[in-house]
Amino acid sequence: MARIKDFIETTPFTKEELLKICDLSLTIKDAIRAGYYPQLLSNKTLGMIFQQSSTRTRVSFETAMEQLGGHAQYLAPGQIQLGGHETLEDTATVLSRLTDILMARVDRHEDVVGLARYATIPVINGMSDYNHPTQEMGDLITIIENLPAGKQLEDIRVTFVGDATQVCASLGMIITKMGAHFTHFGPEGYQLGENYQEILRANCAVSGGSFTITDDSDEGYRDADFVYTDVWYGLYDQERTAEEYTAVFMPKYQVTAESMRKAAPGAKFMHCLPASRGVEVTDEVLDAPYSVAFDEAGNRLTAMRGLLVYFMPPTTFDKEAAEAARLKLNSLLQ
Amino acid sequence: MARIKDFIETTPFTKEELLKICDLSLTIKDAIRAGYYPQLLSNKTLGMIFQQSSTRTRVSFETAMEQLGGHAQYLAPGQIQLGGHETLEDTATVLSRLTDILMARVDRHEDVVGLARYATIPVINGMSDYNHPTQEMGDLITIIENLPAGKQLEDIRVTFVGDATQVCASLGMIITKMGAHFTHFGPEGYQLGENYQEILRANCAVSGGSFTITDDSDEGYRDADFVYTDVWYGLYDQERTAEEYTAVFMPKYQVTAESMRKAAPGAKFMHCLPASRGVEVTDEVLDAPYSVAFDEAGNRLTAMRGLLVYFMPPTTFDKEAAEAARLKLNSLLQ
Amino acid sequence: MARIKDFIETTPFTKEELLKICDLSLTIKDAIRAGYYPQLLSNKTLGMIFQQSSTRTRVSFETAMEQLGGHAQYLAPGQIQLGGHETLEDTATVLSRLTDILMARVDRHEDVVGLARYATIPVINGMSDYNHPTQEMGDLITIIENLPAGKQLEDIRVTFVGDATQVCASLGMIITKMGAHFTHFGPEGYQLGENYQEILRANCAVSGGSFTITDDSDEGYRDADFVYTDVWYGLYDQERTAEEYTAVFMPKYQVTAESMRKAAPGAKFMHCLPASRGVEVTDEVLDAPYSVAFDEAGNRLTAMRGLLVYFMPPTTFDKEAAEAARLKLNSLLQ
Repeated sequence: MARIKDFIETTPFTKEELLKICDLSLTIKDAIRAGYYPQLLSNKTLGMIFQQSSTRTRVSFETAMEQLGGHAQYLAPGQIQLGGHETLEDTATVLSRLTDILMARVDRHEDVVGLARYATIPVINGMSDYNHPTQEMGDLITIIENLPAGKQLEDIRVTFVGDATQVCASLGMIITKMGAHFTHFGPEGYQLGENYQEILRANCAVSGGSFTITDDSDEGYRDADFVYTDVWYGLYDQERTAEEYTAVFMPKYQVTAESMRKAAPGAKFMHCLPASRGVEVTDEVLDAPYSVAFDEAGNRLTAMRGLLVYFMPPTTFDKEAAEAARLKLNSLLQ
Repeated sequence: MARIKDFIETTPFTKEELLKICDLSLTIKDAIRAGYYPQLLSNKTLGMIFQQSSTRTRVSFETAMEQLGGHAQYLAPGQIQLGGHETLEDTATVLSRLTDILMARVDRHEDVVGLARYATIPVINGMSDYNHPTQEMGDLITIIENLPAGKQLEDIRVTFVGDATQVCASLGMIITKMGAHFTHFGPEGYQLGENYQEILRANCAVSGGSFTITDDSDEGYRDADFVYTDVWYGLYDQERTAEEYTAVFMPKYQVTAESMRKAAPGAKFMHCLPASRGVEVTDEVLDAPYSVAFDEAGNRLTAMRGLLVYFMPPTTFDKEAAEAARLKLNSLLQ
Repeated sequence: MARIKDFIETTPFTKEELLKICDLSLTIKDAIRAGYYPQLLSNKTLGMIFQQSSTRTRVSFETAMEQLGGHAQYLAPGQIQLGGHETLEDTATVLSRLTDILMARVDRHEDVVGLARYATIPVINGMSDYNHPTQEMGDLITIIENLPAGKQLEDIRVTFVGDATQVCASLGMIITKMGAHFTHFGPEGYQLGENYQEILRANCAVSGGSFTITDDSDEGYRDADFVYTDVWYGLYDQERTAEEYTAVFMPKYQVTAESMRKAAPGAKFMHCLPASRGVEVTDEVLDAPYSVAFDEAGNRLTAMRGLLVYFMPPTTFDKEAAEAARLKLNSLLQ
């Protein structure tokens, strides 16, 4: 079904293609909620390569495969190397013979790019140091499910508060791709870099969207239909200490009930999770009725199902050859 | 089917409920022995959280899920944290969106209790420092399969020899719940504490069962239909050394062929395994015809099947919505 | 189907039995290529014990089980002990109650032999320090698929270049078992030992095959239809350093385009992978059109499917007992 083999970033995909994946994801969600598990991935195997441990991404991928009739193999950090003793190219070539599709969470973006280049089967980027495209899709789905009354997707404003993490970059990419407005409200030195801004600009040129980068709190929150944040530190090895991050971000960039009041009426709060409660967001906000952070986590699974169905190479059935094999098997197994 | 969402301990369940789970377990065992694998867990996903590694519990849960049409995800020690960077509550909330049921083997009982409190899906306790309720169910099933001729479940006497481990406590709970007689034969300082005795007393008040705690060997083994022991040391980090344990327990609390002769004629030997041969039990006993320890290990799987079927949230099928989703999927996938 | 319960080495099997497994493997490969996944392992569970991490072997086994309707449990290094606190015998006995078939990749051959002796279910050797029989089967399948025009299996000559690894030994065993000619071209002190030669001689006596061990390059490559090599160092803890190996093997035992020209016209290159490019083999050879190393890796999966189907204990169906269990389950689940 997919025009492009791999899902490494959303950039090469059209708005229509990405919305079709959302539609697929939401329809499968409806089906499963109705007790119907469409077996669209029967007999298919996903190889999951994790260079960092992960809960949400791993569990989402594995549940998605199994619910739709397939299987996911978890290759934990240390269980498989990318570019160690064996070259990345050779690993990709071999895994292409042994599985149907791959996903990889990598330390360095170039590794998932290389894996996709050398693999003859599809590769899905399960997060790198550059971006987090499956999170993007889950976030887009969550936004679609929570559109403000009377607004189209193109009308909304989404503000990311805090450090220019890969989640921030990915959010900017998908929002501008959709033709909506994206704001990164973060301190100087921690704002989205030129490499990312270039993509956002190109997206806006096609989609009619726009984006703003600011360290002004009022401008940052103004008219935001969705306020999004991510941790400041603590998930991965980072150059700076927790204290250094706190000194830069606290209190200005903490999302509080007070800061939510600066956003549009009825604004929703989003977070990719895990959250550091009391650091980048207060309990009051994360647990508020307007917080959709946990629905968003559930939509990681929603997105994975649609992505896997969209990118999975189809099984082509050769009736004659299948029947010949069946007969021979019967005779061998007698 | 379950009246209570979680299986953390047997205490809140009635004797009838627990016997129904046994009946379910034994019927599924019969079915599979007859070559019929009832697909009662189709499309369902179990998330398995292990804070300690485990063979029997992990393999039993995973085989049970797969044999009945579902899938189990193994989240190994270190792959998921409970109450680390992310709060236990948030982890429970997120996993409730991504899986159908959870099991957890935890270092601290309060963690599995908290997981159950915050998860909206069922949680099964796969052993804590407090108790081992899935072992309890496997043990009850093994006892039912090996009832002495002419005796009812309520008539039997079961003696646990050795340290008051969580397996000892769990055995006491299930035996007194059933209205039978439980004896803990162990040295002072290593006997079931008052917190456990309180539960046993409450069980007996309802069931008509009884229990004894003694360091007298003759009293300990007298009339025992089942003699049960567990390791003294070596599985987990413990305060005392192997030498200290040996000094306390050897030779009085080693189960030997001679000590088995003090029990009821035809008494069976049980062990939760793994065993330290030559320490808490001799080879002669573990390998004797009256040893049911390995059948008991097989009944871990028997119990898991029944427990998973009993506690799994049912799939509710909405025919109209399912058909609408199916039609929409067909059109999207064309 | 299998006459012998376990697949520890090919020695006790007849040429006909091994060729039947190849036939089964190739037929299932045809079936799957035609889009037909025969569900020959429905409801069956494979326990996979790994004392060393592995990509090809683990992924092949897991994909094979799942494609054919079964399930594989990955017991990673450190997650299960063989002969630690629990005796190997007890572990084997317990796993025989909880799974249907086992595979083990072990540090010491005696562990997989012991596992097979004590387990009541089949055990497949997923590589030991002694041999690598599932690799043997994948290699035989690859050779069958690439027979030189006009030659029978019995006519071919296969040369292994380099250190007498377990892969070298296994290749020698399967080639001589088939009645073909095997050459080990390696330096003195690194040639197949007398224990292995004894097996090759016994094979040849039955099959009419032959074997040569030489450190002469011309003799080594002469008339070889298949040239095979393996790494010299780096995969496991070894007594010697990389430098010491290199001093012994380089440049004489490196497979180069030039050395391939000494082999038979149209000779194929094989490697069990992972390869150390530029060490035991040049890029030019590994990436040449005559290199079948990556097809060979794909045939690990081909072989696993056939082996698992061949060795899996069949499900015996008792119609009456199954129906009784079904009725009782229905009434319990009402």
